[in-house]
Amino acid sequence: MTPDAFASRLDRAAAAIEAMLARLIDATPRPGETLRPSRLVAAMGHATLGGGKRLRPFLLVETANLFGLSDEGVLRAACAVEMVHCYSLAHDDLPAMDDDDLRRGRPTVHRAFDEATAILAGDALLTLAFDTLADPATHPDAAVRADLVLRLARASGLGGMVGGQILDLGAEGRWSDDHRPLALDDAAIRRLQAMKTGALLRWPLEAGAVLAGASRDDVARLGRFGDIVGLAFQIADDLLDVEATPETLGKATGKDAGRGKGTLVGLHGVAAMKAELARLTAAAEAELAPWGPRAAVLLAAARFVAERRK
Amino acid sequence: MTPDAFASRLDRAAAAIEAMLARLIDATPRPGETLRPSRLVAAMGHATLGGGKRLRPFLLVETANLFGLSDEGVLRAACAVEMVHCYSLAHDDLPAMDDDDLRRGRPTVHRAFDEATAILAGDALLTLAFDTLADPATHPDAAVRADLVLRLARASGLGGMVGGQILDLGAEGRWSDDHRPLALDDAAIRRLQAMKTGALLRWPLEAGAVLAGASRDDVARLGRFGDIVGLAFQIADDLLDVEATPETLGKATGKDAGRGKGTLVGLHGVAAMKAELARLTAAAEAELAPWGPRAAVLLAAARFVAERRK
Repeated sequence: MTPDAFASRLDRAAAAIEAMLARLIDATPRPGETLRPSRLVAAMGHATLGGGKRLRPFLLVETANLFGLSDEGVLRAACAVEMVHCYSLAHDDLPAMDDDDLRRGRPTVHRAFDEATAILAGDALLTLAFDTLADPATHPDAAVRADLVLRLARASGLGGMVGGQILDLGAEGRWSDDHRPLALDDAAIRRLQAMKTGALLRWPLEAGAVLAGASRDDVARLGRFGDIVGLAFQIADDLLDVEATPETLGKATGKDAGRGKGTLVGLHGVAAMKAELARLTAAAEAELAPWGPRAAVLLAAARFVAERRK
Repeated sequence: MTPDAFASRLDRAAAAIEAMLARLIDATPRPGETLRPSRLVAAMGHATLGGGKRLRPFLLVETANLFGLSDEGVLRAACAVEMVHCYSLAHDDLPAMDDDDLRRGRPTVHRAFDEATAILAGDALLTLAFDTLADPATHPDAAVRADLVLRLARASGLGGMVGGQILDLGAEGRWSDDHRPLALDDAAIRRLQAMKTGALLRWPLEAGAVLAGASRDDVARLGRFGDIVGLAFQIADDLLDVEATPETLGKATGKDAGRGKGTLVGLHGVAAMKAELARLTAAAEAELAPWGPRAAVLLAAARFVAERRK
């Protein structure tokens, strides 16, 4: 699959996901709800709509597609992981956390609204993600829905994404006596990144397979592919922080070095990590081998992640 | 049931719930998790352990018990609603929200730790609540687990508790041009409170019945009982804010009047709302009539909520 063909496929999926997100985050109260306050709906929309590559939901859609499943339920589940991703950005951007003013070239939620609204919009997005997965409209089999909820909770909670975020703040020296960054070794950096960003890139691969009724072995294999993509994503992100400009990236660069943050790029250098990215792309291809050319889109996604320039 | 007998039953349940919370919020990673960071586990424990009446989980335990169900799964589901309650307190107490230093007579999470940790501990508690409900250890039937997740998400998300919290901040005048509190009428106050506190008091009644396999009619009836208890709870809370002292309450009093906050007590006066509480207790008793003396504990709970002095 050519990079251009991949890009246009990613764009088409992003449009479908954006439309479904807008349907899920609208002002109409659902059964069991009283009223959806307009300020909260607007802030949740600001946090999720209007931009982003939609990589995580794309991976879910394409994994389900690998097993021949493509319906509204797939799009709904895809939106759940994007909601979790976007809630985590809204909270990470808060003054008490990373204190960022810009995200995707637009004001962060607390800059566009205020801190209280950003906290609540994040809380509501996280809750709506589980609402969306548990709703019978996502899949007729309750066992599938409960499994997706449990896997997403494990990927994003205290032993996953949120745990990774607190490790990351700790690594910056926030709670050390001298407030100096910790010198993390290779294993500690990999573990932190597997939690902070890897788990939420693994989930859509597993979830797409679970939704489509794939075998346990196939779910596990796609999970391993997700781990590889997650690691490649983080290395590419760290490389961009060193090499890109704020204009192309839509957010500040050079932040890792400025904070003395431990990254694999900082530890091993740019050249070594570019070689590592090539190795990871080959490993990703090996995991997808059983599906042959049918997995061309997922393989292109792995390449895209490793080679992205923004 | 005498108030003393009820109090000792509530205390025993609270001890069992506290023990289960401690088991769920421990440092051992579960399948699908990498590592549970100690600072996060400690902050989640601070937010949830060591105090509180545990009213919401108690209501779930006693509702399941009404239908003859009493097992570890019931305690787990009961802990889920307490986690949501405690996460909402941790976030509501933040400087950007209500800016409180004390909760149950102890430092709030952001005072005991810091703001970033309090935000993340809240996020992780909310996530762990859904994790706990979706886990097969809570109930063997996935349809029950998915239903509990969906109901809790609706009760606590943008059309429920979180929505109520943003309406509450709005009612204080936070986003009005002159920052003066809004003059809410009776209907608007009731709606706000049904969302902010009512929905999370209704959930354990419905959830206890759903867990025990109760009929749709019984689930609905207990839901209505929960709505009555929720309204009584809020009126009693507003009365305490007028009549109690910070020493007996373990938190600041007089806050509603200080903020010009619209409450039913402020609108109709103390005497009228004490009469309303008596009416609500009678209505609660009427909903429980089909179960006769077997519902004595739930009825005592409704009385306790209406008459509590702290």
